Amino acid sequence: MPLSPEQLAEIDAQRETTFSTRRATVPAMEERLYQATPVLDHGFVRVIDYMGDDSAICQAARVSYGKGTKSVSNDEGLIRYLMRHWHSTPFEMCELKLHVKLPVFVARQWIRHRTANVNEYSARYSILDREFYIPAPDHLAAQSEVNNQGRGAALEGEEADRVLRFLRDDAMRAYDHYEEMISTTNSEGEAQQGLARELARMNLPANIYTQWYWKVDLHNLLHFLRLRADAHAQYEIRVYADAICEMVRDWVPFAYQAFEDYRLGGATLSATALDCIKRMLNGEKVTQENSGMSKGEWREFQSIVK
Amino acid sequence: MPLSPEQLAEIDAQRETTFSTRRATVPAMEERLYQATPVLDHGFVRVIDYMGDDSAICQAARVSYGKGTKSVSNDEGLIRYLMRHWHSTPFEMCELKLHVKLPVFVARQWIRHRTANVNEYSARYSILDREFYIPAPDHLAAQSEVNNQGRGAALEGEEADRVLRFLRDDAMRAYDHYEEMISTTNSEGEAQQGLARELARMNLPANIYTQWYWKVDLHNLLHFLRLRADAHAQYEIRVYADAICEMVRDWVPFAYQAFEDYRLGGATLSATALDCIKRMLNGEKVTQENSGMSKGEWREFQSIVK
Amino acid sequence: MPLSPEQLAEIDAQRETTFSTRRATVPAMEERLYQATPVLDHGFVRVIDYMGDDSAICQAARVSYGKGTKSVSNDEGLIRYLMRHWHSTPFEMCELKLHVKLPVFVARQWIRHRTANVNEYSARYSILDREFYIPAPDHLAAQSEVNNQGRGAALEGEEADRVLRFLRDDAMRAYDHYEEMISTTNSEGEAQQGLARELARMNLPANIYTQWYWKVDLHNLLHFLRLRADAHAQYEIRVYADAICEMVRDWVPFAYQAFEDYRLGGATLSATALDCIKRMLNGEKVTQENSGMSKGEWREFQSIVK
Amino acid sequence: MPLSPEQLAEIDAQRETTFSTRRATVPAMEERLYQATPVLDHGFVRVIDYMGDDSAICQAARVSYGKGTKSVSNDEGLIRYLMRHWHSTPFEMCELKLHVKLPVFVARQWIRHRTANVNEYSARYSILDREFYIPAPDHLAAQSEVNNQGRGAALEGEEADRVLRFLRDDAMRAYDHYEEMISTTNSEGEAQQGLARELARMNLPANIYTQWYWKVDLHNLLHFLRLRADAHAQYEIRVYADAICEMVRDWVPFAYQAFEDYRLGGATLSATALDCIKRMLNGEKVTQENSGMSKGEWREFQSIVK
Repeated sequence: MPLSPEQLAEIDAQRETTFSTRRATVPAMEERLYQATPVLDHGFVRVIDYMGDDSAICQAARVSYGKGTKSVSNDEGLIRYLMRHWHSTPFEMCELKLHVKLPVFVARQWIRHRTANVNEYSARYSILDREFYIPAPDHLAAQSEVNNQGRGAALEGEEADRVLRFLRDDAMRAYDHYEEMISTTNSEGEAQQGLARELARMNLPANIYTQWYWKVDLHNLLHFLRLRADAHAQYEIRVYADAICEMVRDWVPFAYQAFEDYRLGGATLSATALDCIKRMLNGEKVTQENSGMSKGEWREFQSIVK
Repeated sequence: MPLSPEQLAEIDAQRETTFSTRRATVPAMEERLYQATPVLDHGFVRVIDYMGDDSAICQAARVSYGKGTKSVSNDEGLIRYLMRHWHSTPFEMCELKLHVKLPVFVARQWIRHRTANVNEYSARYSILDREFYIPAPDHLAAQSEVNNQGRGAALEGEEADRVLRFLRDDAMRAYDHYEEMISTTNSEGEAQQGLARELARMNLPANIYTQWYWKVDLHNLLHFLRLRADAHAQYEIRVYADAICEMVRDWVPFAYQAFEDYRLGGATLSATALDCIKRMLNGEKVTQENSGMSKGEWREFQSIVK
Repeated sequence: MPLSPEQLAEIDAQRETTFSTRRATVPAMEERLYQATPVLDHGFVRVIDYMGDDSAICQAARVSYGKGTKSVSNDEGLIRYLMRHWHSTPFEMCELKLHVKLPVFVARQWIRHRTANVNEYSARYSILDREFYIPAPDHLAAQSEVNNQGRGAALEGEEADRVLRFLRDDAMRAYDHYEEMISTTNSEGEAQQGLARELARMNLPANIYTQWYWKVDLHNLLHFLRLRADAHAQYEIRVYADAICEMVRDWVPFAYQAFEDYRLGGATLSATALDCIKRMLNGEKVTQENSGMSKGEWREFQSIVK
Repeated sequence: MPLSPEQLAEIDAQRETTFSTRRATVPAMEERLYQATPVLDHGFVRVIDYMGDDSAICQAARVSYGKGTKSVSNDEGLIRYLMRHWHSTPFEMCELKLHVKLPVFVARQWIRHRTANVNEYSARYSILDREFYIPAPDHLAAQSEVNNQGRGAALEGEEADRVLRFLRDDAMRAYDHYEEMISTTNSEGEAQQGLARELARMNLPANIYTQWYWKVDLHNLLHFLRLRADAHAQYEIRVYADAICEMVRDWVPFAYQAFEDYRLGGATLSATALDCIKRMLNGEKVTQENSGMSKGEWREFQSIVK
């Protein structure tokens, strides 16, 4: 359970307070506000704030004075047009603020997306909790034999047990030592100086949980989701992306639908690949050998058109 | 008057609709929402949306689960501490969306601040209105004699009249020709092809008004305001910055107060200047000659400590 | 001719000086350095500096200690892989600095690409030259009848003449008045104050030329080129993009080739479009009506696969 | 010693090759190119490439055709003026590319500076080396008693020994288990599947070394250095900043000198602090009580003017 009773009480208190606003408001997001959606064994994502809705995308695109068109179908058509033609600036007019609890090795991937605002819990200033990500048995995957950065089937038997034992024991021991190092009382009960927190944290492994406030505009969020909700993304970040996809679907349903159609479910084909399609549609038999593609490209191409 | 009756009616309609929300809400901003604050002769700024408040800055800084501390004075102290020590990320957790109508030459300065989201009215797609900035007589300033990018006193008499006549006549003539070029009927009432709008716009001078939706986080907004609400900024952008300052004061009063104290009213002193202050406090007579500063620096230094 | 004899002499002097360097060096770019490639009637693009080459992309991708692999074919394969899978960070490791002279209305489109560094000639500080873009007759296009932001055929006869006359006369008159306003002597030869340059510039139309230093990394440059070398981009910015494409082809030939294949010549297909292709390859007769696409989408789809 | 003989040989080979270039070239940087400056116990910083020099800053500020002014003293004066008045864009026209080897907990601080390009060694794809940061005894600092994110005196005696033992033993054990988990042979010599590298890395503590290519423009680099070469920065990142400061001093000596005077050695004073200085210079006795500052601010103020 990722949240303590005190934290849940704080969240409940915040949810009980409502205000009157003239701003664009999305009931399904109001329902989500502040509540934690669990991800992995101790992580979560929760919506802290949002700005804009599907209409706000259209108003910005039209630079309108009021709501602009009243016709919902016009809005949907415009959003699909904007997405299809890579007009990204209207999508930047919506903003989402999340509170995320996640393992450090996931945070390190996540932060590569630089066009976002981040406030992370400081382990220089504060003490980290004893919470570590330990994979569920079916996610304890072997190294892929064909892909240097991929996974194979789940480990089995003795090997799986040993890995889990290593992960658990090393995490617990590292945390015990972390606590001993920063403590002002040693294990004999004698006073000691206590190591600086900014140094002691270096003993903690990358599966320890951290947390941050993360704020991003919709265009950059969709870019993040396209890369991280993708089948090639590491499972441990993909589950966060999947959870956020559900939030975005509630928040801006037209934009999300267009994103699914044109990005998540779409594919970018090269000039060579488009040429192969034309040849195939003309009845020509195209093989990897006469395609002009490398074996890798051909394999990827097959997975798209077959 | 910058707004048409239709536009005012659209704005009123939008203001009449209210929703219930759990999000951080600032009553003084609700009061401002959608209403246009006039700037210059045909321009305006209006708040379209906002995210966060003073508390949101603190919650992000603390990565808190609820509102964090309930003590308002703690929040103010924390905000002042963050501002003083250049901890910028918590301020990035607030976001403001504005609709701005402004002359093109002001827009060209404004857009240099790149860390913001912009959707500008498209003169490729649409037709611009016949609205031009003509300076009020007391803002029709002569070139400064001491500062290559500054202004002197207001022009007078015949010269002022001539300048205003040039500005008005050239604008009107340019717009007449713009209309004639894009029209599908020529001045004889005969059908003509009509020049592409994306070409015709090139005839319009830089005092024509454009408009955009502009969205920015509080940290980058304060950076913009520090440079553009400054006495050295061009008057025509400074009046926009001044109008936005009033909005920020309503929105995040603690942050704005800290900004006024540490940025707008503060000054950055060089190592040499700090050394001079120490010498002066020790009773030494410091002059430009023995200060280690150039004449320009010394003049700026005097304006700060005198 | 866009350059004065003095400017050409300055450029020649700079080209004559050579240094010894250990940095990645591209002979074809050395040949280009500082020389102006003419664009439009008074504009140009010239390379001021560059950082990196095709190998530098690979070294960054591999985080290598030296040149990494010596095999050129490995480098090409890696670059194609990176481009195909949207691994953008290695391309960010190359940087290009250009000096560009361009009409203001082109500059206003260009600057929307925010991830770049810009220093523009200051019309607050300096006096602009009397140089305006006047379209060549075959680029004096009519407004498209089917596309709100497109062009039709070139204007003809009397209408074309009139448009050119308007553009030329209004530009000359505006510049005459600009000069008169900033002058400290009026047309009678009497002393006058002279309007501040920061104000006088507002009288100048958007076809006046400005210039800037523009620095950008290769990833963001390719993104710019994909949008601006595209057939839907306005002609007047496309010619700049085309000129830069030639420079990039010289600079990083493998990266440029991959860019042409995967981006410029490629296309992103939606989930719906991919499904149609599968159906067509299975022998099904797919029409707009049973495709699941709107008419606009279907037209775009046809232009890709036919 | 941070580099293997093979790596040193690769670096030497790269240093031996020189080219002729017309680009701005800085002999002191040529001397540094590719060579590793050791930092901490296993880390380093080395210059991979640079673009521009002091003159390039001035050329961009002037948007010049050639070298611009030949007078070196003019260039220095201009650079100081630009730095003093926060004109940041000319400094963005210089670019530096570094290869850095650093502990993960330092990398996590470093990456918060988002306006840079980064390619990090991938522990999803590759296997990390057995290299961990173990503080030298005099950097094994106690937690500060007055500052939640600061350090006190070095630990002593038994406590210091114990901390070092924890850090060393936990790192070695974690790495042993990392190797065992990814191995396709278990400790009995039997074949096993081998855990995916992207999972196994989670067992490694934050003092393991990683490495990256980091590319940044001079303006953003100086901002990084101001924050990270500061006395309040954590020692382990400060030593990297200090090493980079020496490189920047060689690269752009005028800009670095101005940076030292106006930023590193300077201070930003609030309106209240400036008012206190004026009062003190007028002979008034100003104390914390009548200063209008909090105790914390007063303490900081004293450290600046005393």
